[in-house]
Order: sequence, then structure tokens, then C-alpha cells
Amino acid sequence: MPVNPEAPIEVSAFSWVPPFAAGVVRDLRVRWALEEAGKDYRERLHDAREAREEAYFQEQPFGQVPAYRDADVQLFESGAIVLHIAQQSRALLPIDTEGRARGITWVFAALNSIEPSLQELAALDLFHAREEWAGAKRPLAERQAKERLSRLADWLGDKPYLESEFTAGDLMMTTVLRLVRHTDLLADYPALDAYVARCTGRPAFQRALAAQMAPIDVTNACIKGETA
Amino acid sequence: MPVNPEAPIEVSAFSWVPPFAAGVVRDLRVRWALEEAGKDYRERLHDAREAREEAYFQEQPFGQVPAYRDADVQLFESGAIVLHIAQQSRALLPIDTEGRARGITWVFAALNSIEPSLQELAALDLFHAREEWAGAKRPLAERQAKERLSRLADWLGDKPYLESEFTAGDLMMTTVLRLVRHTDLLADYPALDAYVARCTGRPAFQRALAAQMAPIDVTNACIKGETA
Repeated sequence: MPVNPEAPIEVSAFSWVPPFAAGVVRDLRVRWALEEAGKDYRERLHDAREAREEAYFQEQPFGQVPAYRDADVQLFESGAIVLHIAQQSRALLPIDTEGRARGITWVFAALNSIEPSLQELAALDLFHAREEWAGAKRPLAERQAKERLSRLADWLGDKPYLESEFTAGDLMMTTVLRLVRHTDLLADYPALDAYVARCTGRPAFQRALAAQMAPIDVTNACIKGETA
Repeated sequence: MPVNPEAPIEVSAFSWVPPFAAGVVRDLRVRWALEEAGKDYRERLHDAREAREEAYFQEQPFGQVPAYRDADVQLFESGAIVLHIAQQSRALLPIDTEGRARGITWVFAALNSIEPSLQELAALDLFHAREEWAGAKRPLAERQAKERLSRLADWLGDKPYLESEFTAGDLMMTTVLRLVRHTDLLADYPALDAYVARCTGRPAFQRALAAQMAPIDVTNACIKGETA
């Protein structure tokens, strides 16, 4: 596992998050990209229960994770960071102009054509389930999510990946589709269900997820009074 | 104006949209980027009232505009297209590694940290204003939008642009902030209000907006029985 306190690359993440968020916080995307690219990184951990220090907003203007730095750049936004890593690694983007552009198109498609409707469903179910308006809105939100998922499934068809090989676009799309893991929405789209299983089955994803969960598991064990 | 039926670059757009959408459809971003880069393009126009042909979904899997093609690539997603154009033009990204990465970070920040909350407000007001749940949800949506706008205004401070010069990130952020033009939300943030005025005052933006509106104005004139 490339979590290495001496690494020149630093990624900010959380040492604790509420259970519904464990395993889907956006630093997972960056960890996964670094695992695919074979690059070590060090973590800078924040506790999601505590307000971020004001100085952190100079690195991440919205106070979120992940923030990222390496020898050359200081960045925020998981999409921008994954793209920065991908542009330096053959494991995440092809070399030819068209292949690169198509992989990048799917990074944006994941974040902007799929994520909004799935994030909306997740917010309704996980943050606002007790609000009357959330119940009234949910059928519309689910219908909109399904329209997008249906088109995505049509595009994927029986291909293993969105384009001719695994790219940063598949990495991003997989993390987006996992946002509705609390529902059985993907079961209606066997091609998407299999696609998520295929991508999350990659050793790099498994290492990234384990690394993200490690401090969280330790913190929760401590809260429960167990020895970590 | 670089709309040129013989140009090798093609951008899909609408010949008609409902009034609330006129001037904010996403092809505006691509037209603006091409204007800044000084590149001609031809239009392929669809009528937003009619269903897209099935063949179009092979170009734009979600049936939206814009789709884009040039001699090298065929792309969709306004973010990906603007980035593709920006990577070939000094007018939209600096040359140095850090400057480029920072500009790209703001493209993602506009689309993923700001747009979702503003798009939510726009959807509540423009699509669902008569629904009881929309009224019940609106205060929360406005509070979330203001939290993000407040942080963005803090970042901008008294700088003219998000980084040291105008980039594709400012282009994207400006188009995102215009999504709430039907509200007086930005009036609470004079720095953002002035920023949008500064960016939309650029000749390239004005040409892009005029080009986007040209077929729509003609169509509406025809509907009204005027001679176009």
C-alpha cells in the first residue's frame, strides 16, 4: 500500500466520518488514481466532526476533502486531482489524442451528467428522510436518476469499460455509481451492476478503500472502547 | 463572429429553447471558449421541443447539447470540450504546469462545487415553483447556495480573476453564476457580481451570446408571425 508518511504527494482526508459516508468520501477517488498510477502518498487527516481551520480554506476554498499537493502543484476538487494524476500515467489515460480526450470526457460525464441526480437521491435518503418535502420529491428524483442510468447502461452495452480500455473516466464513474449503494437502483441495470463490480474488483480500488477506511476503523474502535 | 458553416469544428446547439433557458444553455461555454481561442466553428441545430434522434445518443449519450467534433476528436460534456479547447490555447490556460493545473481546478470547482447548488435553486424556481415540496425545500437550497457563494467571494476577494489571470476556470465559473440570474442572490456578494460583469463584458463572451441567441431570436420571431 502506497500510504507513506515520507511521500512527496499529500492528500487530505478524514480520520472520522459518519457511517453512511464511510467508503464514499471523495478522497477515495484520488487514492484510487494514485494506486493505479503506482504513486506513494501521505495523508493529512481531519476529523469531519470538527470545523476546518481557516487556513485550510486557502487550500480548499470550500473546506472539503480532498486537497492535494505534490512537488509541482497544489490542487483541490477530486476531478481536477484525478485528471492531474491521470495525465502523468498510462494506467489512467491512453497516449493518443482522441483516447485521452474520450477518457477525460467520461470524467466530466460522471461528475456532471450522473453524479447530480444520484447525489440528490443520496441526500434525500440520508440527510432528509424525515422531511415531508423529501418524500414528496423522491419519485421525481428517482425518475431523473433512472433516465440517466438507463442511457448510461445503453452506452455501456456489453463493453467492459466506457471506452476501449479502463481509464480515469471509469474510475470516476464507478465512485459516482457507488453513491447509491444504499438503494437497489443499480439492480435494474445488470450491465452497470457488473461494471461497478468489475471496476471495484481491481486491486488498486481495494487498496484505496482499505487505506481510506483504516483511520476511520481505528477511530471507531477507540470510540467503542476497543483497543485499536 | 466565428460561426462559419465551412469550419472543421462542429458544435451542437438549439434552434429554440423556452425563454428561461435562452442564454444559459451549455453550448454557450463552448462558443465562448472558441471565441477566446479565436477558432471558427459551425453549428448543428436541434429544436429543444423535439426528441433527439437515436443516432445522436451515439455522440451525446444523454441526448443533451453541446456535442463537439473537430479533425481529431468527437466529444461531449461542456467541461470536457472547454478543457480540450483550453489545452490548445494560451488565451484560456497559462503555459506553466502549476498555472494550467490551477485553471483546470477551477473548471471542476465551478461545475462540481458551485453548479449543483445553483442548479438546484434554478430547478426549484423555474420547473417546480408550483409544487408544495419545492417551497418547503427552497430555504435549505438557498442556504446551501449562499454557503458556497460566500466561500467563493472570500476566495476572490478583490482579485479580478480566480487566479492571476483569466482562464477557462473563470469562463466556466461565470456561466455557472449566471444560472441564478432570475434571483438577486449575487447582489449579496458585490465581488461576485462585479466578477460576472467583468467576465461577461469580454468581447468574446458577447459574441458567443449573440451567436447562441441568433437562431433562437429568428425562430421566436417566426412563431410570432414576424418576418425574420
